[in-house]
Amino acid sequence: MQLGMIGLGKMGYNLVLNLLDHKHDVVATDVNKEQVSKITADGAKGVESIKALVENLSTPRIVWMMVPAGDITESVIAELKADLEPGDIVIDGGNSNYKDTVRRAEELKEKGINYVDVGTSGGTDGARNGACTMIGGDADVFATIEPIFKDLSIENGYLYTGKVGSGHFLKMVHNGIEYGMMQAIAEGFEVLEKSQFDYDYEAVAKMWNHGSVIRSWLMELTQSAFSKDPKLDEIRGVMHASGEGKWTVEAALDLQVPAPVIALSLMMRNRSLEDDTFTGKVVAALRNEFGGHAVVKK
Amino acid sequence: MQLGMIGLGKMGYNLVLNLLDHKHDVVATDVNKEQVSKITADGAKGVESIKALVENLSTPRIVWMMVPAGDITESVIAELKADLEPGDIVIDGGNSNYKDTVRRAEELKEKGINYVDVGTSGGTDGARNGACTMIGGDADVFATIEPIFKDLSIENGYLYTGKVGSGHFLKMVHNGIEYGMMQAIAEGFEVLEKSQFDYDYEAVAKMWNHGSVIRSWLMELTQSAFSKDPKLDEIRGVMHASGEGKWTVEAALDLQVPAPVIALSLMMRNRSLEDDTFTGKVVAALRNEFGGHAVVKK
Amino acid sequence: MQLGMIGLGKMGYNLVLNLLDHKHDVVATDVNKEQVSKITADGAKGVESIKALVENLSTPRIVWMMVPAGDITESVIAELKADLEPGDIVIDGGNSNYKDTVRRAEELKEKGINYVDVGTSGGTDGARNGACTMIGGDADVFATIEPIFKDLSIENGYLYTGKVGSGHFLKMVHNGIEYGMMQAIAEGFEVLEKSQFDYDYEAVAKMWNHGSVIRSWLMELTQSAFSKDPKLDEIRGVMHASGEGKWTVEAALDLQVPAPVIALSLMMRNRSLEDDTFTGKVVAALRNEFGGHAVVKK
Amino acid sequence: MQLGMIGLGKMGYNLVLNLLDHKHDVVATDVNKEQVSKITADGAKGVESIKALVENLSTPRIVWMMVPAGDITESVIAELKADLEPGDIVIDGGNSNYKDTVRRAEELKEKGINYVDVGTSGGTDGARNGACTMIGGDADVFATIEPIFKDLSIENGYLYTGKVGSGHFLKMVHNGIEYGMMQAIAEGFEVLEKSQFDYDYEAVAKMWNHGSVIRSWLMELTQSAFSKDPKLDEIRGVMHASGEGKWTVEAALDLQVPAPVIALSLMMRNRSLEDDTFTGKVVAALRNEFGGHAVVKK
Repeated sequence: MQLGMIGLGKMGYNLVLNLLDHKHDVVATDVNKEQVSKITADGAKGVESIKALVENLSTPRIVWMMVPAGDITESVIAELKADLEPGDIVIDGGNSNYKDTVRRAEELKEKGINYVDVGTSGGTDGARNGACTMIGGDADVFATIEPIFKDLSIENGYLYTGKVGSGHFLKMVHNGIEYGMMQAIAEGFEVLEKSQFDYDYEAVAKMWNHGSVIRSWLMELTQSAFSKDPKLDEIRGVMHASGEGKWTVEAALDLQVPAPVIALSLMMRNRSLEDDTFTGKVVAALRNEFGGHAVVKK
Repeated sequence: MQLGMIGLGKMGYNLVLNLLDHKHDVVATDVNKEQVSKITADGAKGVESIKALVENLSTPRIVWMMVPAGDITESVIAELKADLEPGDIVIDGGNSNYKDTVRRAEELKEKGINYVDVGTSGGTDGARNGACTMIGGDADVFATIEPIFKDLSIENGYLYTGKVGSGHFLKMVHNGIEYGMMQAIAEGFEVLEKSQFDYDYEAVAKMWNHGSVIRSWLMELTQSAFSKDPKLDEIRGVMHASGEGKWTVEAALDLQVPAPVIALSLMMRNRSLEDDTFTGKVVAALRNEFGGHAVVKK
Repeated sequence: MQLGMIGLGKMGYNLVLNLLDHKHDVVATDVNKEQVSKITADGAKGVESIKALVENLSTPRIVWMMVPAGDITESVIAELKADLEPGDIVIDGGNSNYKDTVRRAEELKEKGINYVDVGTSGGTDGARNGACTMIGGDADVFATIEPIFKDLSIENGYLYTGKVGSGHFLKMVHNGIEYGMMQAIAEGFEVLEKSQFDYDYEAVAKMWNHGSVIRSWLMELTQSAFSKDPKLDEIRGVMHASGEGKWTVEAALDLQVPAPVIALSLMMRNRSLEDDTFTGKVVAALRNEFGGHAVVKK
Repeated sequence: MQLGMIGLGKMGYNLVLNLLDHKHDVVATDVNKEQVSKITADGAKGVESIKALVENLSTPRIVWMMVPAGDITESVIAELKADLEPGDIVIDGGNSNYKDTVRRAEELKEKGINYVDVGTSGGTDGARNGACTMIGGDADVFATIEPIFKDLSIENGYLYTGKVGSGHFLKMVHNGIEYGMMQAIAEGFEVLEKSQFDYDYEAVAKMWNHGSVIRSWLMELTQSAFSKDPKLDEIRGVMHASGEGKWTVEAALDLQVPAPVIALSLMMRNRSLEDDTFTGKVVAALRNEFGGHAVVKK
């Protein structure tokens, strides 16, 4: 099929290569002109602007956005709303908040433009060689573009999830689960590290990946990480977060779902961003007040 | 090799079948005589007592215990200590607490008996067809019995983990991680269940097992569970626990490791065992006291 | 001073009585006409509508809203914006979200109307006899109405907290702390309840209120609650929540503050609203899948 | 009454002064001879050893231990068991683990010696001027020594709590609640500190102590701490713990009581003892593995 790709970052670029492998016809653009030249050399038709991208697609157009969530996605959609025509299809493959997705779909619907939200898992390697995709939107729209997802995804690795927003919501929850699984694995290794025993962590992770209940892709990645740096001596335990975990906790609060593990996974990440905490100062000061317990001076 | 097996429950029975497949010579006993008859029919030499088992093994003897942790393990070891001779090897393949393991090893060492602790993962299917084993004990003792673990385990699925106790400690932490991963997955599905969307959970789990970051054996089991009961309507959410998660939290407290995710996974299991909580009564009564908020009468 | 009160519920009614005690001149209204008649009998000037209330106040007018947060507050403010004049002062004494407060202040500022946000603690008894108030808004506006807060509040029980929104934000955090303190107390009593000992909870709470580190108003209320129902046998542990705790957690997430205790206090409340959980079903089903552990059938 | 005091640290010394105020006759000892000299100057009879202390008391003797929990308490009790006679009374006023207390009471009972466990709250100031005491032991033994508790404690500040161990258990839970309340307060102030507003924390705490739902001794101490160091700039947020919180969590786990708030209060303390975490390293390494997210190098 013919398809336009807006955004040629780590994910978008690899998705285009993946599409080209499957003989799709791709028109691509990015604010970074170097990426546009590269993708042209790789076989896509690189163009200089969203306007040019729209002009180079035949109707009904299929435009896939793979740009950062938030303001950038918002402005790209505004431009697409202006340029596209009724019957065209916009696909948001980024990590947008599902509430924004639902709103944007309504805004585009006003002009008869179809909106499809795609949660994409599997990292850059998945994008290149077979992603895992969860797709929300109108069922008939999905039906017309299903071949794209079939080709982009690993076998059995795509799912139509229902009405618009459901793809991004599912990807959000996927990431919330991921936070919890990662924190569980990491806590376990910290218990090992502080124990009286002396384990070879790479060997442990490898063994756990062969027959244990906790074998998983994340444990394979754990094995890989320890193979490069056996005690992770080279890095600091600073755990950034990119938003979906926070949204999952907020959704859990909205839905009154107790989600202590996902919430704590996120909060321990936030804790890791602090060198010292005001919470700790208050508790230390209180212990000093009532019990005369020593405080650590700065 | 020749080996004695004490305990022919779900795990022990399957381990014997697995050993027989690999042409090992197994003497087996259990308090349940029916199991002894069955295993004899399957090719092992079933005997009526631990004493008989010891008498039927040539020295140095290898005795694998696969009995419930706690008092039963304790009494079997007392009997073995009386019956065995210096140079013999006792293997505890159950979920014993590592502190007990370290103590028992010292007690048996007094009489020159070797002790090996084995954490076994992979469930009954693993026991039958290829388990995941983590083995603590003296290195030279392990060397003499390594062929057993090579045969019993899935390829790359066994690891010598160091001094005695390290096998059970590692299995304990494995289960702690398992608690956290299970709770993370489960919280995610509850968020889905209460959301405005309508997902097919079996399909979701299947898709996540193809290319997503959270693909894992536990997600495969999630898929399997939903394939049998799509909304889990037939069961109640009562989450029992069998001890290793609690020990992991206790070890974390002893080692001053913050392990909020593993701890909360366990506490939510305990919460699920309560129909109503005294905690809740106190909070409800306090809200009524200061704000006049209505309470729910029994 | 002369002041208008909109909202004669539990809190608003008692605040008016409190103001009348201090010789303030109060014009009051409510959608419930019975309350208007009662407050007139008590010495206020009851009127039938917000419009009438505005007409009965001399400029610059002071109007205190004590109505439910959310849509009702929103619509009252819309009406006030239409009816009031530049220089008038609107006080929101309810539990509004501070983000709404900041927005509303800007909207009223467009017409030259001043906005003051007041967090009110101390329950209905405080409202009647001496509240605890935290007041945000312009400093010069606060200066003109400070006598009202001095009279309404218990001695030393009011504070000007800075720019608009700071009063509601502080009250929100106050409630977050309250959630945590209540849950801590309640967990402690559940540990006592399940222990091998047999305590008289009213006596325990009373003793703790005399000299212990945890003496507090909440412990006094605990004592009071147990004095009426020694084991809280008459109620169920259903813990509702009215929003400020959730906002505190959301603010903590926005500010990247780890607040596990406040978050868990809220999540355990949400848990208490569920008879059974989907989380629990998933975990129970998984335990059955890998270990053959029995599930509880419905 | 006549009473022996073993241990003249911060707590024991003040208790003796308190007893002397109430005209009790105190024989006192400590390993620190300077403290013995000082207490003699203050009016007690200082002696050089436990043996001498026992010899200077008339039967039935009352001996109060106020020494560190654990090994020291254990060895003092061993010595007392050797020196005391049937009918004598040993009081453990320290923070002993209730399980040790129950065991020790049984051991002393073999020789006919009575054992009383006392949890003491209120800090050093309480010890001096009126403590809060929770007392376990045989009811008739308590009856004979009740005057001591009446005099030592603030009015209404002592309680007979039942069989031996119940005093220490209750004090343990008291401290668990204290951990949770402190963490709740501290989290609230960190939310304030990171907010867009600018609060005077001493003023906030003072106001909250006048009429708010969260007024408490701990909030008074918060006010006091901020009065000395308005932003706590001089200290680091290192939160040590002295054992009772951990025991409360362990008891909660044993009793299957979900106690997330107390557990997390403790775990955040443990987290504050770490400059960097292995947990954090593992999560950071995993994020790098699957998403190419940057790690922070050492």
